[in-house]
Amino acid sequence: MRPLIFITNDDGISAKGIKSLVEVAVDFGDVFIIAPDKPQSGMGHAITVNHPLRLDASRLFEGLMAFTCTGTPVDCVKLGIYEVMHRAPDLIISGINHGENTSTNVLYSGTMSAAVEGAMENIPSIGFSLANFDSDADFSGAQKIARQVIPMALEGEFPDHVCLNVNVPNLPAEEIKGLKVCRQAHAFWADRFDKRLDQFGKPYYWLTGEFSNEDRGEDTDLIALEQGYASIVPTQFDMTAYKKIEHFKKWIK
Amino acid sequence: MRPLIFITNDDGISAKGIKSLVEVAVDFGDVFIIAPDKPQSGMGHAITVNHPLRLDASRLFEGLMAFTCTGTPVDCVKLGIYEVMHRAPDLIISGINHGENTSTNVLYSGTMSAAVEGAMENIPSIGFSLANFDSDADFSGAQKIARQVIPMALEGEFPDHVCLNVNVPNLPAEEIKGLKVCRQAHAFWADRFDKRLDQFGKPYYWLTGEFSNEDRGEDTDLIALEQGYASIVPTQFDMTAYKKIEHFKKWIK
Repeated sequence: MRPLIFITNDDGISAKGIKSLVEVAVDFGDVFIIAPDKPQSGMGHAITVNHPLRLDASRLFEGLMAFTCTGTPVDCVKLGIYEVMHRAPDLIISGINHGENTSTNVLYSGTMSAAVEGAMENIPSIGFSLANFDSDADFSGAQKIARQVIPMALEGEFPDHVCLNVNVPNLPAEEIKGLKVCRQAHAFWADRFDKRLDQFGKPYYWLTGEFSNEDRGEDTDLIALEQGYASIVPTQFDMTAYKKIEHFKKWIK
Repeated sequence: MRPLIFITNDDGISAKGIKSLVEVAVDFGDVFIIAPDKPQSGMGHAITVNHPLRLDASRLFEGLMAFTCTGTPVDCVKLGIYEVMHRAPDLIISGINHGENTSTNVLYSGTMSAAVEGAMENIPSIGFSLANFDSDADFSGAQKIARQVIPMALEGEFPDHVCLNVNVPNLPAEEIKGLKVCRQAHAFWADRFDKRLDQFGKPYYWLTGEFSNEDRGEDTDLIALEQGYASIVPTQFDMTAYKKIEHFKKWIK
């Protein structure tokens, strides 16, 4: 039996990135797609609890089972596993995201949250992102990396309750130096809000800002990309700051 | 100068939980409130990137600076820090959430994501949650715990880039045994979708399910609550699975 590969993303079903990922995945297994019906960037690990969800068959992927979902990327994963698919997938892949999800962006990213949800379900899961936000970006480099990583995940031993955050530099395929296993860089957004007045003179605020790297380590995803490598960060959902437990125990007499 | 305490939540500005938290916080500092204008439960670390945000003055908290925001809890924190407040707050508190945010719920929770965003900004931050989903829950036990923890956070040494996930059992104040510093339990939702037909015969899906604890450790937040303690989990935003880095390095020749 061919492996069953579940695919989702956060840029929506019509994005070039998911199409690029499907093109690679079909060579490795039977592909099943549930993706948001509209862009869901920045949705993080959001789930839809106060509204019902809709699923609709999509004809965007000829010969493949594909659905759009009105919810978030995490909703897509939950619906796929618990409602739509007849057996658990062997692999969940999410992306290819338009724009990198390095460093702390893992928390904001719907693409990576879908993979983290897969890890909670103990299914090997990978989020792929390309360091190019353009809707018509060239995904051939990211496809090359996906073609390397997907069979590793299907054939290699995938540790329990972990997923992978794969980021690909914005370079022609032949210029990508290879893969590097990294840690999440300690880097942050210096946010700014664009404050404007609407046609009625009422203010509105639009999030913008610059990402800045405070992390001088050589072993981070950001540095790997800078050096022309695709980064792989093993990612877990246990957010306990274990090293600080003793510190806080002292607070309690 | 009195400490500046920023307050937000994910149940929305009119929830009883945030009112209960404000009642406690005013005894420890100057309070500044920006909270979602509608319930934002389950929004996780979502941010609003594709739409502008609105802020409106709220008159719900007499004598206090309070605003509603059209966005998510994380949006509220970003707006507070980067746009509205004239100086960085000394403490960010989020909640009191209607319903516990123990274990992996930290990932789905807008309340905790606001605190995690505070940690990214390196501001001492705490999410408070009560193990009772009722909109008219009795918050007196959670208020008692907040009254203990808030001065600890203002006076004690708060480690960099960490926040606290505080969960309070649903017990009368006098029956809560105390505080326990814990790790996040390894427990998950066994999801289920309620599938129904709408008035036109079209299906819709509504997320439901049961939370089940696979974790037999005695040092988890779930066990602390079961035993009648309020749990404190030091929480970080570095999701790197450090122990798995060597494993994945072997994948790459």
